[in-house]
Parts: sequence; structure tokens; C-alpha cells
Amino acid sequence: MYTVAPAYLADFEGIWEIVHAELSHGDTYCYDPDLTPEEAKEIFFAPKVQQYKIVVESKIAGFFYLRPNFHKRGSHVANAGFMVHPDFRKLGIGRALGEGALRIAKAEGYQAMQFNTVISTNEKAVTLWKSLGFSVIGTVPNAFQHHTKGLVDVYIMHRFL
Amino acid sequence: MYTVAPAYLADFEGIWEIVHAELSHGDTYCYDPDLTPEEAKEIFFAPKVQQYKIVVESKIAGFFYLRPNFHKRGSHVANAGFMVHPDFRKLGIGRALGEGALRIAKAEGYQAMQFNTVISTNEKAVTLWKSLGFSVIGTVPNAFQHHTKGLVDVYIMHRFL
Repeated sequence: MYTVAPAYLADFEGIWEIVHAELSHGDTYCYDPDLTPEEAKEIFFAPKVQQYKIVVESKIAGFFYLRPNFHKRGSHVANAGFMVHPDFRKLGIGRALGEGALRIAKAEGYQAMQFNTVISTNEKAVTLWKSLGFSVIGTVPNAFQHHTKGLVDVYIMHRFL
Repeated sequence: MYTVAPAYLADFEGIWEIVHAELSHGDTYCYDPDLTPEEAKEIFFAPKVQQYKIVVESKIAGFFYLRPNFHKRGSHVANAGFMVHPDFRKLGIGRALGEGALRIAKAEGYQAMQFNTVISTNEKAVTLWKSLGFSVIGTVPNAFQHHTKGLVDVYIMHRFL
């Protein structure tokens, strides 16, 4: 059983290790593969963004951010993003992060969670989110420049909390 | 025939007049109705955001912003937002802004345009965007706290350029 805990700027080194590894694949996130640590800090530690982590053997095994998906009149809908350290795959960290995000978002008063850019070819993610109650509410055609597959569709996924 | 021209920080006073009036209704945009001029400046003049205006009789009759809807690997999809001054309604300014945005986005190299939060009850906007070739590619249920109607759906609209 993994414990989700708040993450802080002091955790950034561990988070950056995960982000850097994740973006090098070019098949899961839109962020520039050449994103600098400074840019990553601006994105993941922006105002109104909350950070959470799972620590395994003193290492950050995975993290997620949680934030309002829209401004004020839509701020009851949460958005979140998740990354797992490559050394800690296939241990259920992603699912534990997802479950933690849903629990925390509900506790924070959010009424729903929306993902804007689930890459359609990222079957692992799509399967995980469906198993956690999300459904595809929209498909943006050719919205993602995949590292090897060229332009592929992006799913918008959603569930109420 | 209205001419779309770049807008600058020097135009902010005229833009703010439009934004302030628009948000007071609470039925078209998520932004806080109590948004301050400083916050509006941060949103509409953020890095990577372009601004355009239509000037009628020396007044800014309408404006739009244009920006990438996603980070790097999705930055070929544009996003835009449009507002018309209340004194210049029913003159075709909104349509002229929309046509200008499509033309400029294409010239800038964007491959598609996506709107993330078209309020479903904003029939005028939905009709305009459909007439300009957009279609609803997703519906986010109850995503907008409407000023008088409570929670209403939000449309995600899209067209290729």
C-alpha cells in the first residue's frame, strides 16, 4: 500500500528526475522534450497547483499535480497530471497516484476531474483511467505529435467525483 | 468590412473595458467576475499569447487572443478567445474577429483551432462557430457555473485550418 503525501519545492530534484525521463520518450505528454528544470518548476509549481508524491525507499517513485481545470466559474472541475519514475514501474504506483488524486480532489471540494490530453496511443493510461471510472468525452483529432507515430488523436477524459 | 490589426499593451485600457463588461454577465466566460485589470493583463498578455483588435470610430470594438492550445507536441493546435464591446453588438464584429483569427492562425502555421470552454447556453457563440466550420467534439457535463442557470455543460469545439 502506497501513501500519497504532499510534495514541496524541496522535492523538486526527485520530481525533475521523473519529468525528464518521462518527456524523453515523447509519447505521453505535450511538454517540450527539451524542457528545462526552470520551466518544469514554473509549470508544476505554478500558483493554484498542488503537488503530491509517493515515496518508496526514500525515492520519489511518482508524483501528480492537481489544479482547477478552468478559471473561477469552472473551478469546481479538477485537472491532474501523473508521472511514475522509470525505476518504479509495474508496481501499481500509477494506480495509487490516481486513486489518491481522486480522493484528495473530492476532499478539496472539486465536483469532477477532467484530463485534457490523454494521448490515444497511450493504452496503459487510457486503460487505467477507464478502470478508475473515467470515460472519453471527446477526441481531438491529430492533436499530438507522437515521437514515432506522427500526429495521433488526443482523448479528453472525465469523471464526476 | 472590418480590419483585424495587432493589439498591444497600449490598447489595454480599451480591452479592459470590453473584458470587464463581458465578465459582468457571468454567462460566457469562466474568468472571475471580479477579475482585476492586473489579472486580466496577466491572462491576455501572457507570454506566447498574441492579441488582435478591430477598431471602429477610434474605439476598440472587439478583440481576440490567439495562442497554442497545448505545449510543444500539441502546439500546432491553436486556441483563441473573443470579446465584443457592448456598444458594438449586432454589427458582425464577432464574425469578423472569428474570420480574422482563422486566417491569422493558418498563416502562423497552426493546423487546427480548438475552443475548450464554449458555454452550451451561449447559443449566439455556438451558432457563430458552427457557421465558421467548427463542430462540437466533446461536451463537459456541468462544467460551468452560469450566473442564473446554475451548472451547465461546456462544449469543446474544433476545426482544422
